[in-house]
Amino acid sequence: MTASDAAETVRVELGDRSYDILIGPGLLGDAGRHVSTVLPGIRAAIVTDDNVAQHHLETVRQSLADAGIETAEIVVPAGEPSKSFATLQEVVSRILDARLERGDAVIALGGGVIGDLAGFAAAIVRRGMNFVQMPTTLLAQVDSSVGGKTGINAPHGKNLVGAFYQPRLVLADTAALDTLPAREFRAGYAEVVKYGLIDRPDFFAWLEGNWPAIRDGGPERIRAIAESCRAKADVVARDEREAGDRALLNLGHTFGHALEAAAKYDPAILVHGEGVAIGMVLAHEFSARMNLASPDDARRVAAHLENAGLPTNLDGMKTHLRDADSMLGFIRQDKKVTRGALNFILTRGVGRSFIAKDVPESEVRGFLVDKIGQ
Amino acid sequence: MTASDAAETVRVELGDRSYDILIGPGLLGDAGRHVSTVLPGIRAAIVTDDNVAQHHLETVRQSLADAGIETAEIVVPAGEPSKSFATLQEVVSRILDARLERGDAVIALGGGVIGDLAGFAAAIVRRGMNFVQMPTTLLAQVDSSVGGKTGINAPHGKNLVGAFYQPRLVLADTAALDTLPAREFRAGYAEVVKYGLIDRPDFFAWLEGNWPAIRDGGPERIRAIAESCRAKADVVARDEREAGDRALLNLGHTFGHALEAAAKYDPAILVHGEGVAIGMVLAHEFSARMNLASPDDARRVAAHLENAGLPTNLDGMKTHLRDADSMLGFIRQDKKVTRGALNFILTRGVGRSFIAKDVPESEVRGFLVDKIGQ
Repeated sequence: MTASDAAETVRVELGDRSYDILIGPGLLGDAGRHVSTVLPGIRAAIVTDDNVAQHHLETVRQSLADAGIETAEIVVPAGEPSKSFATLQEVVSRILDARLERGDAVIALGGGVIGDLAGFAAAIVRRGMNFVQMPTTLLAQVDSSVGGKTGINAPHGKNLVGAFYQPRLVLADTAALDTLPAREFRAGYAEVVKYGLIDRPDFFAWLEGNWPAIRDGGPERIRAIAESCRAKADVVARDEREAGDRALLNLGHTFGHALEAAAKYDPAILVHGEGVAIGMVLAHEFSARMNLASPDDARRVAAHLENAGLPTNLDGMKTHLRDADSMLGFIRQDKKVTRGALNFILTRGVGRSFIAKDVPESEVRGFLVDKIGQ
Repeated sequence: MTASDAAETVRVELGDRSYDILIGPGLLGDAGRHVSTVLPGIRAAIVTDDNVAQHHLETVRQSLADAGIETAEIVVPAGEPSKSFATLQEVVSRILDARLERGDAVIALGGGVIGDLAGFAAAIVRRGMNFVQMPTTLLAQVDSSVGGKTGINAPHGKNLVGAFYQPRLVLADTAALDTLPAREFRAGYAEVVKYGLIDRPDFFAWLEGNWPAIRDGGPERIRAIAESCRAKADVVARDEREAGDRALLNLGHTFGHALEAAAKYDPAILVHGEGVAIGMVLAHEFSARMNLASPDDARRVAAHLENAGLPTNLDGMKTHLRDADSMLGFIRQDKKVTRGALNFILTRGVGRSFIAKDVPESEVRGFLVDKIGQ
């Protein structure tokens, strides 16, 4: 086994759409070998952003070239605004300019924005090309690289246009995370914690003891990412198109999305993982208020997230939240609403989350009034 | 059974994506009842074009309203240019304006352009809404309403961006075809003939005897449409995503597409079904030249298509075809090319078509030189 062989492989079982996630250090430098094993004889478009391109594009391009894979490089501006119709059209056009065929590949090299954008382009060019993910952020490695959600934003809201489209291969290079800003690594870690809180109490307990080692790299980081991918893959395999169980993955996200909206999606104020961290604590506190779980669980969750340097309460958001009703308005706009009823992921304790339908709005409002004020 | 009950139902078997095609006169006037049976409690967006809207929009809107289905109407300009990124974005935006959710429906009321455009919008809004087809042309009823191909055009070529996305229900109102121009009806009929030529020799023989009755309406028209839908559904059920057998549906289309491109997609010169009619005759002639089939078959096919008022040779196209090589150039641009090799649908006789891979370009060129000149 060479240094670039994957330390872990997670198989996502989806019938004829099954694929492997390889996880380990140095995978980007060996991308050509891995891609050509799964997709022999192809050409490819590498979609990335101007930040990631500086760190990793030449490594990947050279590795693919060494394996005989001719590439076109498509570099878009870094950041959420690239998840737009205009950028999608540009990426689609560049893929067609390169005369790639259905059997060729679109490679997403970057974080969640690039994965969502490039994956959607792969889904629609020639009604579906091969798609390969090379996630370079912790969030993308543990979240967007599993499950096949791709898409762009609309003026009406985030991720309102897209497709469910599975990759043929995911290369999660854990060494690529060393170039990630600390804040972004912590934000991705919130999603790692989420998998423990949904239905893996032992994993959560292990995380409580191993956060410093995960942050600093090494085998604990690989294990945390692999266990997260396995957890998400389990849920997705049960419910690929989000008809039921998959909603569990939204633990902390209803409150979290509302907070992101309240912060006008300004990453200087709040990034997605931070919203999820606060949202998970609120979900545990709300569950305690509904007498479903002990307040001790909420305190335990908050303590670990705080230890990892994540926000766990609304203190930093006070200036952006006018009152309980304005936050309720943001919650109503969230797309996880089935014909007007409020759906929430609640919990009976650490690792015991469940889907609650028809949660009374009055209960949510009462909880928010206590938190934010009338 | 009331007058508006479907005279025929064709089931398209695609596992959990299976659906029914109802075929008969007066279905648009009873759309509300049929839609609410399959999709109870929904709201809907009706996507149509300004021509079709004049004939049928109020009928459908009223019928849906009577069944308690609230609708938003989205009317786009008639014609191929609406299969564009710009119009797609407009339709998507209007669906989101109407605050439709994933469980609501997008209804395509019109011909192939509307079906492709609205179906693609349904596929990508909220990563997939319910989709209902109400095809109002013969071509759309026998071709685009079965198989789930949706999409738009790119500057690089037709249908290069899209999705495979199945409807939940198709209502093929055979009386709606009475408002169709004769030329458009004949062009759609070319695709009906195609199903006989692929693998249903008895159907082709029946068509030879029944064209006038099909043209004039009545039970023969319903039978011809139902048999066509059944034929296409059989092929699609075997190969939903066009990995193999589905290519049989391209009989006559490689030559046909090249002719459409040579005519610059100007419907005043040639419409799709006319290109397919000529293409099918050429495919039979080319098969005879390859000693695969008897020249009598090509003559028999040409005779029936001519009898139906369709073009069957290149006489009308001479001014648009410079030479054999220019036509070969258009053929090479066709997207049904696997890594540079020329794929053709050839035949061993009426109803005995097959997929031929790696057809030597020199043979095709020789055939075209004989037809068009050096």
